[in-house]
Amino acid sequence: MNEPGIAIYMIPTILAEDTQERVIGPQIREAISRLDVFFVENVRTARRFISSLKLGKVIDNLTFIELTKDTPESITWEALKNLRQDAGIISEAGCPGVADPGAAAVQIAHQLGLKVVPLVGPSSILLALMASGTSGQSFAFHGYLPIDKALRKKAIQTLERDARQKQQTQIFMETPFRNNQLLEAVLETCMPDTLVCIACNVTAADEMIKTRTVKSWKANLPDLHKKPTIFIIG
Amino acid sequence: MNEPGIAIYMIPTILAEDTQERVIGPQIREAISRLDVFFVENVRTARRFISSLKLGKVIDNLTFIELTKDTPESITWEALKNLRQDAGIISEAGCPGVADPGAAAVQIAHQLGLKVVPLVGPSSILLALMASGTSGQSFAFHGYLPIDKALRKKAIQTLERDARQKQQTQIFMETPFRNNQLLEAVLETCMPDTLVCIACNVTAADEMIKTRTVKSWKANLPDLHKKPTIFIIG
Repeated sequence: MNEPGIAIYMIPTILAEDTQERVIGPQIREAISRLDVFFVENVRTARRFISSLKLGKVIDNLTFIELTKDTPESITWEALKNLRQDAGIISEAGCPGVADPGAAAVQIAHQLGLKVVPLVGPSSILLALMASGTSGQSFAFHGYLPIDKALRKKAIQTLERDARQKQQTQIFMETPFRNNQLLEAVLETCMPDTLVCIACNVTAADEMIKTRTVKSWKANLPDLHKKPTIFIIG
Repeated sequence: MNEPGIAIYMIPTILAEDTQERVIGPQIREAISRLDVFFVENVRTARRFISSLKLGKVIDNLTFIELTKDTPESITWEALKNLRQDAGIISEAGCPGVADPGAAAVQIAHQLGLKVVPLVGPSSILLALMASGTSGQSFAFHGYLPIDKALRKKAIQTLERDARQKQQTQIFMETPFRNNQLLEAVLETCMPDTLVCIACNVTAADEMIKTRTVKSWKANLPDLHKKPTIFIIG
């Protein structure tokens, strides 16, 4: 059993290269300075991120425990149960526990009675919502839509209907190399006056966040290929 | 018409007193240092927040434009149309555009062709989700539930059903002086093994974020009276 008072810190990382000076706050620097054990979605990304903060930590002395969508629950359970010190959870990009495997570890942490402390940092989903101008009073995030064309079309129709009828903002995404196909499907499926926000390369120097009608996007099709993008129907 | 390139910065503020040193990042300090015009939900809160950052700004030289839920759209439209310099939007607490009136101004900003730049900062909704251990792959935020007892019970039943059937995490809140009644309604309405996360005083020194079953909460009822709280059914 863990000793009382052991805490798991949910540590956000950067969304775009070389943005740590701007988007990583003092709270995250403090936490990483203090911790030596990290549950991480991607070891290479996490090591590089910690190095980039220039906190004087010797990366080779740190313990990284992989936590991907394929990590068996029993492995994470054992690792958390045997913790004798505070640890961090770091996602591949953005905030752990949101659209990533971190939530599974946190659920176990609550069962083990560990303290869970979320730290403030960049989330492309939240930043896109803030800048979209669509309703932030009621919203839903759906992750990835189906790849199958017919099913995807049906999913988009449901999102558009919920956005209008429930006044609920609909947020979704796609793997970056399929962004253009998803955008095409959205513009083909939705009504001309439906508002679509495209939030592309959020926090990067070439960040583009625009909300326009379907009709207006059709006349000015952006190239989203391989660029991390959040889509919003408002 | 606005000159090209004018930008609106979505500026998060603190959630709890005296936390600015920990949760406000360099990006927000930079933006506030540079800006002289702010659209704000609460002028007093915004002035106090800017003062607390000790950036050497003379608060009396700044322009504050009120942007509440009762501000007529035409007033915000005129103010944004006549902007000749970059401006910021500051909410009463947390991230503007999320569960506050900022979104209405952003929608106008997009129509006027202004650039909208969201800055990284604390959101009690996102922090609660990160620390809850409930699914971050699919989630919905509903704002306030109905006050009427029968309607509220029905709403909670729908949330519980959606959490189970759609595996969609359900997030909601209440005005702090009614938190205990809402918690009571949730615990009375939901099944004993349903997971409920209570995220109370997020980012404050006495932050409490715990996910437990309904049965377990009933045996250990917390007092949430007048404490800002996010509720999650997972």
